[in-house]
Amino acid sequence: MRRKPTIRDVAAEAGVSRGTVSRVINGGRWVSPEAQTAVEEAIRRTGYTTNHHARSLATGRANSLAFLLTEPQHLLFADPTFALLLRGAAEALSHRSMTLVLLVAGTPTERANVAHFVSAGHVDGVLLISSHESDPLLVDLLASGIPTVCCGIPLGHEDEVSTVSVDEIESARMMTRYLRNHGHRRIAMIAGPHDTPGGRFRLVGFRDEMGEDFVADLVEEGDYSQESGAAAMARLLERTTDIDAVFAASDLMAAGAIATLRKAGLRVPEDIAVSGFDDSGLAANQEPPLTTIRQPWDRISEEMVDLLLDVIAGAPQRSVTLPTTLIVRETA
Amino acid sequence: MRRKPTIRDVAAEAGVSRGTVSRVINGGRWVSPEAQTAVEEAIRRTGYTTNHHARSLATGRANSLAFLLTEPQHLLFADPTFALLLRGAAEALSHRSMTLVLLVAGTPTERANVAHFVSAGHVDGVLLISSHESDPLLVDLLASGIPTVCCGIPLGHEDEVSTVSVDEIESARMMTRYLRNHGHRRIAMIAGPHDTPGGRFRLVGFRDEMGEDFVADLVEEGDYSQESGAAAMARLLERTTDIDAVFAASDLMAAGAIATLRKAGLRVPEDIAVSGFDDSGLAANQEPPLTTIRQPWDRISEEMVDLLLDVIAGAPQRSVTLPTTLIVRETA
Repeated sequence: MRRKPTIRDVAAEAGVSRGTVSRVINGGRWVSPEAQTAVEEAIRRTGYTTNHHARSLATGRANSLAFLLTEPQHLLFADPTFALLLRGAAEALSHRSMTLVLLVAGTPTERANVAHFVSAGHVDGVLLISSHESDPLLVDLLASGIPTVCCGIPLGHEDEVSTVSVDEIESARMMTRYLRNHGHRRIAMIAGPHDTPGGRFRLVGFRDEMGEDFVADLVEEGDYSQESGAAAMARLLERTTDIDAVFAASDLMAAGAIATLRKAGLRVPEDIAVSGFDDSGLAANQEPPLTTIRQPWDRISEEMVDLLLDVIAGAPQRSVTLPTTLIVRETA
Repeated sequence: MRRKPTIRDVAAEAGVSRGTVSRVINGGRWVSPEAQTAVEEAIRRTGYTTNHHARSLATGRANSLAFLLTEPQHLLFADPTFALLLRGAAEALSHRSMTLVLLVAGTPTERANVAHFVSAGHVDGVLLISSHESDPLLVDLLASGIPTVCCGIPLGHEDEVSTVSVDEIESARMMTRYLRNHGHRRIAMIAGPHDTPGGRFRLVGFRDEMGEDFVADLVEEGDYSQESGAAAMARLLERTTDIDAVFAASDLMAAGAIATLRKAGLRVPEDIAVSGFDDSGLAANQEPPLTTIRQPWDRISEEMVDLLLDVIAGAPQRSVTLPTTLIVRETA
């Protein structure tokens, strides 16, 4: 076996959880003396060397956090939600005399380079934005013992990393309930990618709330972009003519759906109601203004920074779930 | 097997020579993209990363360059030119196994934090974007001996730092000549901020080319943003009613000017011709599409990265001036 020993190996050897190993590596707070000794011995036996060791020896703390976007770079500019998160994180760090370092890792090469950079200790921790389930970067970060906080529940790694997310399922139920209370029954959903938490759990909430009225054929998937929302709406219109309402898992997809409906000569909301998710700046400026779910962007970034600083200080893994708000405007 | 993987292991895994592995590790010059990818994957699989980091610690190199924007963060998202430069720089670095670190320093606090981060050696050099004359950050960088390349001529420090810029004066003359050749004589200019090279030198070129037809009263200044272009156009319309054409020093300001002209019931180009500067994505998608000056974005970022790597390697200060292209569309 040529691969480097990981935290997982150390944990198995020491008979403790990976979280405990991580806490020992990050300064030993919230660790019993017994566990501390067991982990130190296991580190010696497995030959585990963190880049963290090199890092603290060579430079100490970097006084910076990474805002790491694992999406193609153009999405950073196309999707206003990233700008909202970035602004909040930059403000939270500015007050603490720390630097926010924006890293974009959209390709395998960029991911490898970014993993090197982060492991070399140039940042103290990572705010991981927009993780897809198959993304190997989170695994690399965890294996290297890099303090990390995820934005949104990291599918497949739910119990391994600290997380700030909104209550996706309840938020989707809230919007679906609102549409049903307005008499809509044939409600379609344009879901997000199934390998992202927003894609998966908003669909779960929609299905739960629809109950017996749920029709699998009225669900299409987009990638959160406006173009994908327009295309998904076109596919729905090809299949059926009696949709009452459309719930899109992002404001951008809702905007795309509205454009497709307009081209088809359908009025929003008179003929079909449309609602979105996010309440990025787009929703209020859309014509007509978009009914949507507001994510608490400022609180999300503040909580992520707070949580990451705790993790860096050695606090145990923790997850924060924030509530959302239904914003009723004109499209539904 | 727990022995440390060597370059030989990486070469065997990648199916390339040790020389190729070495070239990838040392910056990726003279390596095909295929070999680059194969070696990067082999480095990952063999766990050679540790040696890579050890090397970067040993040489004191961070293997990263900063893309440093000294503007308020919202401009990063509002002005498409930054996205174009960022994409080009990210691509140029990705091929070299280096990480592009985006830093935004829009406030004095952020500037102080960023200066500290950069001085601590977390990046090997700085691509300085959008410097204002009074900006103390460039002085700090130069005083700290941080390898730096400026985008655009740094006013007040022209001979102290390596620079990549377009020929601002000749570009503005070219556009002005074009407008004059189409019979326009009462030409207004919406200039950029006078403490930026694009603000100052585009106005110089405009004035030179206008010669005796230059009227100081037909010059207004904006901050490159769409809102500032709209406001500048409104001020021009308050003062005079016989403008033939407007040359704006950015596409965003041209778009703002067109919006103001529309509100005033004036048609573009029938009543007033409007031209911009930049040829960011905005210009082609504007309705009607914008006549403008195309800056060679890809070459600018490539040259900046090349020049910065030379500076890091100890090359003397040097300045590169790139030509622009007049793009005739429908607004002038």
